Amino acid sequence: MTVTSLVTGGSGFIGSHLCEYLLGKGENVIAVDNLGSGRLENIGGVMGNDRFRFIRHDIREPLQIDGKIDFVYNLASRASPVDFFTQAEEILMTNSLGTYNMIQLALEKKARFLEASTSESYGDPTISPQPETYWGNVNPIGPRGCYDEAKRFSEALTMAFVRYHGLDGRIIRIFNTYGPRMRPDDGRVVPNFTMQALAGEPMTVYGEGSQTRSFCYVSDLVRGIYLAMNRDVRGEVINLGNPTEMTVLEFAKKIKAITGSSSEIVFRPLPENDPMQRRPDIGKAKRLLGWEPEVGLDEGLQLTIEWFRQSLNCPKPA
Amino acid sequence: MTVTSLVTGGSGFIGSHLCEYLLGKGENVIAVDNLGSGRLENIGGVMGNDRFRFIRHDIREPLQIDGKIDFVYNLASRASPVDFFTQAEEILMTNSLGTYNMIQLALEKKARFLEASTSESYGDPTISPQPETYWGNVNPIGPRGCYDEAKRFSEALTMAFVRYHGLDGRIIRIFNTYGPRMRPDDGRVVPNFTMQALAGEPMTVYGEGSQTRSFCYVSDLVRGIYLAMNRDVRGEVINLGNPTEMTVLEFAKKIKAITGSSSEIVFRPLPENDPMQRRPDIGKAKRLLGWEPEVGLDEGLQLTIEWFRQSLNCPKPA
Repeated sequence: MTVTSLVTGGSGFIGSHLCEYLLGKGENVIAVDNLGSGRLENIGGVMGNDRFRFIRHDIREPLQIDGKIDFVYNLASRASPVDFFTQAEEILMTNSLGTYNMIQLALEKKARFLEASTSESYGDPTISPQPETYWGNVNPIGPRGCYDEAKRFSEALTMAFVRYHGLDGRIIRIFNTYGPRMRPDDGRVVPNFTMQALAGEPMTVYGEGSQTRSFCYVSDLVRGIYLAMNRDVRGEVINLGNPTEMTVLEFAKKIKAITGSSSEIVFRPLPENDPMQRRPDIGKAKRLLGWEPEVGLDEGLQLTIEWFRQSLNCPKPA
Repeated sequence: MTVTSLVTGGSGFIGSHLCEYLLGKGENVIAVDNLGSGRLENIGGVMGNDRFRFIRHDIREPLQIDGKIDFVYNLASRASPVDFFTQAEEILMTNSLGTYNMIQLALEKKARFLEASTSESYGDPTISPQPETYWGNVNPIGPRGCYDEAKRFSEALTMAFVRYHGLDGRIIRIFNTYGPRMRPDDGRVVPNFTMQALAGEPMTVYGEGSQTRSFCYVSDLVRGIYLAMNRDVRGEVINLGNPTEMTVLEFAKKIKAITGSSSEIVFRPLPENDPMQRRPDIGKAKRLLGWEPEVGLDEGLQLTIEWFRQSLNCPKPA
């Protein structure tokens, strides 16, 4: 019998790639999204597929749905730093009440549940790379608290239902991911630098650019998410990300080179509580899922920048 | 015009003392409680007061209420470690959805809002004493995560509404508090040791008893809560507790002495993630509220043990 997966945030950046991947595996897919930050054009390519169904719904409301569901992938949440200041309420309640509603749905349908958490659970980490056993360094009352604490709450909630209510749940912590369909105004490093480079505008580095990030290409991530759902890892928390670390400044230079941009790199003050380093320890993902990233940074950036170029109708430099 | 205060968790240990204190200040008081861990006998003494009103209500549901409200004190939440394992869902949703509903009520009524958070926000702290600027050391997926993360979430939620929705909110972090009306089965040090000592049963110390606690008598705490609401400390987070530190073993010996018990002190393995030390830095409370504890430990323990003795009908030792 065909597997049916429900993906919340299904028309978002990562969610839409996951929907395509699951359809490619022969599954029925129900994408749920309130279109707050997700976009219908992200799922334009699968809208004609008769194994695909889109439901516009805000998971802060309970979701009634007929028929069987085998897997609930809970990816719904704004995740862009630019939204932390204008959409704090939505972020907090989507990850608390929304996650609660999706756990209830999973229990009702006897479905497996996957909570998409984040490396932001580690906050501004004091150790690197971060293993899943690290408790994190998060300011609960800081300007990023709305996202970090919302995600930590969603983890605690998932674990409570795993421990006391029989939920077959698992948690992944997604590190920086990039690829086609990122929002241009996302506020994160890849779209920021790419948009600036393509427009020939100054590329803005915060602080001295010595803070590091590690970037995972979206196809690698989506394969890891699938494995985390399909392996018997009930109650486990698993990092998914690319451990290849690079400073933000190196990143700016790489994107400048790939785009062939003449943009100047400029420096601006570091925002409050901006993490200085973030790098996954993926030993657990390797051990439990047999997973590690396969797409190199140059290849991934080429694909991503090409997508930005096309979607913006930017000409290639001569 | 008489001030009207609404106290959620109003029939709980701390909430009921707060209601009495506010009535003593001449206020109208509305106590809201779902009677999950609160008890009607805690408010038996004020039930005849015509400025007092009790509403049985679970704040996970929105609260409609007629008339003006000036202050919303949000104290509702189970807080006993014994409940972390059986009532995790209620704890998580009361502090997220419940806090959200009470913030909505405060906004609707243009009322000041006070969120009662906890020293558990600091988790197992790596510095002592803990100032409000310390980010804490909490395991989001551990067995205590349901409480610690729920409270950190409530702080982040309150701050989001202060920052972006005009809420006149403040947060207090309550450290260990003791006094009459603690639940005998509360699971915390004072009632545990007192019950065991009064019954002549072995007094159970976890680990070697070298972990420290600092205990604030409930009347001191309630005065601090009142000041935090009535001073202009919008957006502030303030520790309320007694910085006098003592090891758990010393505590057992003191209670054994005050009760005149012949109980033996026995040692049991330390539970997972039990904090090793917890001591408030109350410099901010002194500075902003002019507050510090006044009731000494011997005096407070005498009052508390006497209350336990009477409520249990235990005879005094000869």
